[in-house]
Amino acid sequence: MLIDVNLISPLSRSSPITDSSPYEVRRAQELNNLLGPKGSTDAIDLICDLHNTTANMGLTLIHYTTSDWVTLARTSQVCFNKHHTGNQGQAFSTAIEVGPQPHGVVRADIYIIMKEAVDLTIDWIHKFNSGTVRPNQTWLIFVCRNVDYPRDPETRTLTSAIHPQLQDRDFCLLMRGDPLFFTFSRETVKPLYDCLWWMSYHIL
Amino acid sequence: MLIDVNLISPLSRSSPITDSSPYEVRRAQELNNLLGPKGSTDAIDLICDLHNTTANMGLTLIHYTTSDWVTLARTSQVCFNKHHTGNQGQAFSTAIEVGPQPHGVVRADIYIIMKEAVDLTIDWIHKFNSGTVRPNQTWLIFVCRNVDYPRDPETRTLTSAIHPQLQDRDFCLLMRGDPLFFTFSRETVKPLYDCLWWMSYHIL
Repeated sequence: MLIDVNLISPLSRSSPITDSSPYEVRRAQELNNLLGPKGSTDAIDLICDLHNTTANMGLTLIHYTTSDWVTLARTSQVCFNKHHTGNQGQAFSTAIEVGPQPHGVVRADIYIIMKEAVDLTIDWIHKFNSGTVRPNQTWLIFVCRNVDYPRDPETRTLTSAIHPQLQDRDFCLLMRGDPLFFTFSRETVKPLYDCLWWMSYHIL
Repeated sequence: MLIDVNLISPLSRSSPITDSSPYEVRRAQELNNLLGPKGSTDAIDLICDLHNTTANMGLTLIHYTTSDWVTLARTSQVCFNKHHTGNQGQAFSTAIEVGPQPHGVVRADIYIIMKEAVDLTIDWIHKFNSGTVRPNQTWLIFVCRNVDYPRDPETRTLTSAIHPQLQDRDFCLLMRGDPLFFTFSRETVKPLYDCLWWMSYHIL
């Protein structure tokens, strides 16, 4: 059973804990008390937040702000994919997202990639603290828009899946006329935009 | 969040329903009341039970008994993979398992395969009812043994994942000396048996 809980947002929302609160919400607040509070001057300098995803993103860093030069410099140093989700007000907080991996499954290849990302991050922190990191480098960033699935107008349930020709092809360029969705009645739905970079960050 | 609930077993267990019972357990008992009770003379003749899995099994039929010639004949008719899990006492009940697909995700390719399996099953039922199906055919079956993951002897937590060389290679022949597991300390674990057919039916 998969539940729709954003495991990051409770840190900034401070939702009340009850007996039925999911483990992840409880744990997020424990970590916020231990390492934060998030956004305060007492918070620690850098959090390395590890995620896995069902999307075929490879090894990806997710940034929350373009004014955070520490995570930007770290990204250019270790050559991950880059994904900007918009400014959420944190300083020096970056998520490492690795996929594809089903929820509840451990894959050795994903484990090895994630371990390498953590090792590279720790190496980078040592270099940064010793003054050997140059913060200004040129690099590319993907700024994405959210595109919802086609839904039944009354029930709001999904009426399609990702088109088979697009499935698992994260970071490809999607043009007007390319297949985007595949309805359960076997019709192809095309994008309404001139072009967009395709990335299936959160598949519902 | 993935919970460890066998969504089939409640049908035969008749566990009491409470306010905190998962949807799947509640639904399983509703279906058992509607279509069963399971194993009784009042139960309907054939149930087509649709599952998806994270394992790379393709389209697979799971049999519960070798004495059920209806499902055996159906299997040879439609050329699925075959998997025998041991006699659990049901008559004419077969699961269709399709993978790989992460839990909580709809993939169009998996949806198309599953739809084809259901259509073939309905075609087969029509042929069977009209007397044009020959029940005796020769076919191959995989009878599997369960192999648990290596675990910490005290905490019982997993200490390894499937070896990267074996991941996603369902139905290959695994010989003594071949890599089986990959520990989180990066060591390879080999099987203790002469040979076995590999199938990652349930990945925890």
